[in-house]
Amino acid sequence: MPERSRVRAPQQDRSRITRQLLLETTIDSLAAQGWVATTVGSVARQAGVSRGAAQHHFPTREDLITGALEYMGEKRLIQAREAAGAVPDGTDRPYAVARLIVDFYTDELFKAALHVWTAAASDEELRARVLPFENRFSREVFGIAMGLLGADREDSDARRAVQATLDLARGLGLADLLSDDSARREQVVEFWGRQLAALAPAAP
Amino acid sequence: MPERSRVRAPQQDRSRITRQLLLETTIDSLAAQGWVATTVGSVARQAGVSRGAAQHHFPTREDLITGALEYMGEKRLIQAREAAGAVPDGTDRPYAVARLIVDFYTDELFKAALHVWTAAASDEELRARVLPFENRFSREVFGIAMGLLGADREDSDARRAVQATLDLARGLGLADLLSDDSARREQVVEFWGRQLAALAPAAP
Repeated sequence: MPERSRVRAPQQDRSRITRQLLLETTIDSLAAQGWVATTVGSVARQAGVSRGAAQHHFPTREDLITGALEYMGEKRLIQAREAAGAVPDGTDRPYAVARLIVDFYTDELFKAALHVWTAAASDEELRARVLPFENRFSREVFGIAMGLLGADREDSDARRAVQATLDLARGLGLADLLSDDSARREQVVEFWGRQLAALAPAAP
Repeated sequence: MPERSRVRAPQQDRSRITRQLLLETTIDSLAAQGWVATTVGSVARQAGVSRGAAQHHFPTREDLITGALEYMGEKRLIQAREAAGAVPDGTDRPYAVARLIVDFYTDELFKAALHVWTAAASDEELRARVLPFENRFSREVFGIAMGLLGADREDSDARRAVQATLDLARGLGLADLLSDDSARREQVVEFWGRQLAALAPAAP
């Protein structure tokens, strides 16, 4: 028994590592090279994996790309929950929440996702695969932000303030796509943190 | 009169009309079919213009697409200035301003531009062509909103409130890309109109 699992395990490990490598390479490729350049073949090449092995894991480009979005999204949510736990109580908390949400939507994953969303806008099949995950992802981030602000779900203004924060963050992510917008963004986040402080209780 | 002008400048007119038709078809094609499908050939075909005539006006795809963004952007700015003139004074003015800005970033032109921006993110040459116009466009919209709110350019919070409104509007535009987000958007705009009212003077 132990003999058998010892033989089996490294193969499972290799398979899992190959899969992760392909998914992470896909996000890098989307963010840096865009939709057109990101194919199973090009990702396999960049990851140093044979095309056959890549196609064993992801038979189609859509499998690879939606798989990558989900994998990285889940990983980002775990990071966000960890970061949420480290947000200090006190008067700076609303700013820290704005900061966390905006950071969430201005990273490589957001840039990769932008390429997928625009492709999905004119591809019904891809849209049907991407939308359920994107909706769930937004709900999770919304829940994290509401929790951090100690906001009451019955309070419609608090809900809208948090929704607006997510929309603002996506807009700031978009504004960072073609040039480094970090200096201006920092001012907007500082401003927004003060608005949130006036709207929502500062600590749970 | 129309008879005479038709005789006098028919070639110039035809050329101008062909050009406009190509530019408008490009925006429609980008918004509905995306970047990959929008080529000089496909746009000429959809516009009912010969490929040669299209290439006379726009030798490359980049010429056509950046030309279309600029042409439609200028047209949209004229519309926005007209709409700005019609915004009533009074307590609803901040809401009307939020509404106007958000409408500005949730139309077909915005969806078309999104496809160009994501393509430009991984194409340095296209980015260099698109950025100056996009920056000028944002400055113009910012100026329209500042004027509408009677905001003082020396007031850094008013400036940031208006910048945040533009970012929020872009985020709402993005949220509308994959599914109809109009009901949720309406709530966020109503909420933000009230925040603007508290932040900026209601009338010039």
